[in-house]
Amino acid sequence: MAQLLLGKNVADAINTDLRRRTAALREKGTVPTLAIVRLGDDPSDESYLRGARKRGQEVGVEVRLLQLPEGTQLSQLLRSLDDLNADDAVHGVLLLRPLPAALREHTNTICDRLSPRKDVDGMTAASAAGVFTGSAEVGFPPCTATACMEILDYYGIDCRGKSAVVIGRSQVVGKPAAMLLLGRDATVTVCHTKTPNTAALCRQADIILTAAGVLNSLTGDFVRPGQVVIDVAINYDAGKVTARGVGGIAGDACFQEVEPIVAAITPVPGGVGSVTTSVLMKHVVEAAEK
Amino acid sequence: MAQLLLGKNVADAINTDLRRRTAALREKGTVPTLAIVRLGDDPSDESYLRGARKRGQEVGVEVRLLQLPEGTQLSQLLRSLDDLNADDAVHGVLLLRPLPAALREHTNTICDRLSPRKDVDGMTAASAAGVFTGSAEVGFPPCTATACMEILDYYGIDCRGKSAVVIGRSQVVGKPAAMLLLGRDATVTVCHTKTPNTAALCRQADIILTAAGVLNSLTGDFVRPGQVVIDVAINYDAGKVTARGVGGIAGDACFQEVEPIVAAITPVPGGVGSVTTSVLMKHVVEAAEK
Repeated sequence: MAQLLLGKNVADAINTDLRRRTAALREKGTVPTLAIVRLGDDPSDESYLRGARKRGQEVGVEVRLLQLPEGTQLSQLLRSLDDLNADDAVHGVLLLRPLPAALREHTNTICDRLSPRKDVDGMTAASAAGVFTGSAEVGFPPCTATACMEILDYYGIDCRGKSAVVIGRSQVVGKPAAMLLLGRDATVTVCHTKTPNTAALCRQADIILTAAGVLNSLTGDFVRPGQVVIDVAINYDAGKVTARGVGGIAGDACFQEVEPIVAAITPVPGGVGSVTTSVLMKHVVEAAEK
Repeated sequence: MAQLLLGKNVADAINTDLRRRTAALREKGTVPTLAIVRLGDDPSDESYLRGARKRGQEVGVEVRLLQLPEGTQLSQLLRSLDDLNADDAVHGVLLLRPLPAALREHTNTICDRLSPRKDVDGMTAASAAGVFTGSAEVGFPPCTATACMEILDYYGIDCRGKSAVVIGRSQVVGKPAAMLLLGRDATVTVCHTKTPNTAALCRQADIILTAAGVLNSLTGDFVRPGQVVIDVAINYDAGKVTARGVGGIAGDACFQEVEPIVAAITPVPGGVGSVTTSVLMKHVVEAAEK
């Protein structure tokens, strides 16, 4: 039976630290502030927004919503970002993505318009360069990748000299997580859809970080005793039985197969996802402190 | 007996292509031009400069030297870079590093002052972000990492679905090479000084790219039949017997042990190092074409 790496404990520890830091900032007249930019009214944003507002209130970060219409023109959106860049009362900016279809081809231009100083979810090229080079000078790594490291840190899992397999090479999770693990002196292997032997590679690893986004893709034959599994994926499992009925979110790991074998695993829900909003707030507070 | 992956053949193919492209550019009135910025007179720059000039002449790229004194102030160097950024006749800029000791702490500021459009050796944050995200929109990957890919391409070594081990995690070779291999659908493992089992990991790999910079560090027990070894290192071997006498450059691979076992290997000298200047010129020509 594995140790459950509960995100709540990690988030609580971060939040406690943040309350102290935001109190200190407010004493000096600075109200750490996050602006969330939302285009259109995709209902899937709602729960994220609610979560961010609640977390902000908990830790003393003001959360503002800049709601723009679905049909916002590129030039209007860029102007809004310029305004947020210039607004000294705003320390962090989160742009909800994916963008509406009409703007999607301009994603790079849009993301890069944001000042790296306010880029609390690592969407600018400067933040990408910072993660890649391991320098924390400007920008921030994406919150989800950072949340994985916060979990490892909180539970005292030392990466130095360990082997880590990252499944997935996305720009928001797989690649930055690989760089952060490398920065912690792990030997890192990045697997992806073209990897023919992911299961065998995983069995050799000390730490498995899976971000494939494929339900039940990490089965019992990917793991062995003693391993740590960080399950970053948030998949919908139509057959999952929960207290609220049938259907719910689940990770990549086939939990009933993997959990009895490994040493430790993050549950989904209740694992990495529970930490990301606290990391977001931490980045805002860091930006405000700078 | 391994196939020798000779850099000269690769460079010749690149150069032939470049001569055609520079001729086309010159016909349209554009003389593709590289400015090399050198501070001080470290004699180890001399052979590099000679090589770059010769290669430039061969392929139709003009090479200008901007020689600055060893004691150049930060502000002066930044102004020089601004001038080169503004000079439409200059398409690529190479800043010889390491910088003099007094400027070294400002390396990031200095590197980032260069326009990413002219950053033909991948020293700006924008280039780093481009390599990391796999987008070729702006900037260039470092020439040495690119040279490794040119060798794989020239000799028809397909990376897709193969496993690659990169030894070294430097910003100029290890990390960018890992990203370029990942972009070619290899499954990539990055080993470094904190990796306890590099030899075992190497034996499992299809492709080994070694950039440790440690003479004879890749011994016979790192390899097995069928592998491809790309040796990026340029080490001095005091005991090496060459046609010119005793002492010469050598790679990480203990050549007499490794070469009889593997399928293919780049010699040192005559491997990766022979391709980098052609890659540099290719980047200048690409910058001029844009």
